[in-house]
Amino acid sequence: MLADLALPVPLETGIGIVTLRRAHPDDTAAIIALLADDAISAARGDTASVDDLPAYAAGLESVLADASNDLLVAEHDDAVIGTFQLTRIPGMSRRGATRLLIEAVRVRSDLRSSGVGSALMRWIMDVATAELDSPMVQLTSDAQRVEAHRFYERLGFAGSHKGFKYSAPNQGR
Amino acid sequence: MLADLALPVPLETGIGIVTLRRAHPDDTAAIIALLADDAISAARGDTASVDDLPAYAAGLESVLADASNDLLVAEHDDAVIGTFQLTRIPGMSRRGATRLLIEAVRVRSDLRSSGVGSALMRWIMDVATAELDSPMVQLTSDAQRVEAHRFYERLGFAGSHKGFKYSAPNQGR
Repeated sequence: MLADLALPVPLETGIGIVTLRRAHPDDTAAIIALLADDAISAARGDTASVDDLPAYAAGLESVLADASNDLLVAEHDDAVIGTFQLTRIPGMSRRGATRLLIEAVRVRSDLRSSGVGSALMRWIMDVATAELDSPMVQLTSDAQRVEAHRFYERLGFAGSHKGFKYSAPNQGR
Repeated sequence: MLADLALPVPLETGIGIVTLRRAHPDDTAAIIALLADDAISAARGDTASVDDLPAYAAGLESVLADASNDLLVAEHDDAVIGTFQLTRIPGMSRRGATRLLIEAVRVRSDLRSSGVGSALMRWIMDVATAELDSPMVQLTSDAQRVEAHRFYERLGFAGSHKGFKYSAPNQGR
């Protein structure tokens, strides 16, 4: 967990106040459901299979045990409706800037375009950058997610980069 | 530093054996020179200005103090000729996969196309993924770096994503 984040925090959205808080192990099933509630993720293997539950639970445990990472969830009416992961990365380039990497942003599919996603992103851009002293924020989005790209651009992100991925063979995933 | 990496390690390249090792504070000036030896980076502010030396030194110190990050340099004939940063990121998506993020890859400009860059990348793809139990590797490259994109694709990376960046205002960078 990123100890410097002041959490939980209420966020105003189009569906009312949503509480942003750190995930805990009881949220595992809800987060898995959000990850699978998306055709592109499902095609990569995030299908909420019971067989994968131990791997997901171990992933969450590792994130929460890591001082440079945090997994957050957005809660509304006692339901987890959104999630994302933050990673704080020190570095030398860009004159020694520390950056925040955002991974695995998901909002429940029936709540997209409800202002929940933009409230989460604005919190990262305005609050987390200050609390973590990390002025740069970066993320990648699958090239197929054209609507998501417009969403990030409207928020003020520049789509200046191309993102590359490689999966090593024969290592069990 | 990423304690599980077996370093230093000799790598075969087109200019002979290059030693890949962890950076240390004495390498600060050499790494700054590599970061500035590139028009796109220079345009972002990495101009090797003396004024920025404390910020760079603090950046390197933070990376080496962080258990999820490491900064490596490639050495040949007692000169630092290449560098990159590795970040190990636990996560829940992709069935709990841990990923390696590569940032700030640089090879001295007169040695590009010498096989040094591909030896560094192959070490990450084949060795670091296994030593760090992190089968996924990801990086972003400025959209202007068309030759670099071909280089990553030849190595087996898929350019499947679009990369977005945001810099928070009024936070000193």
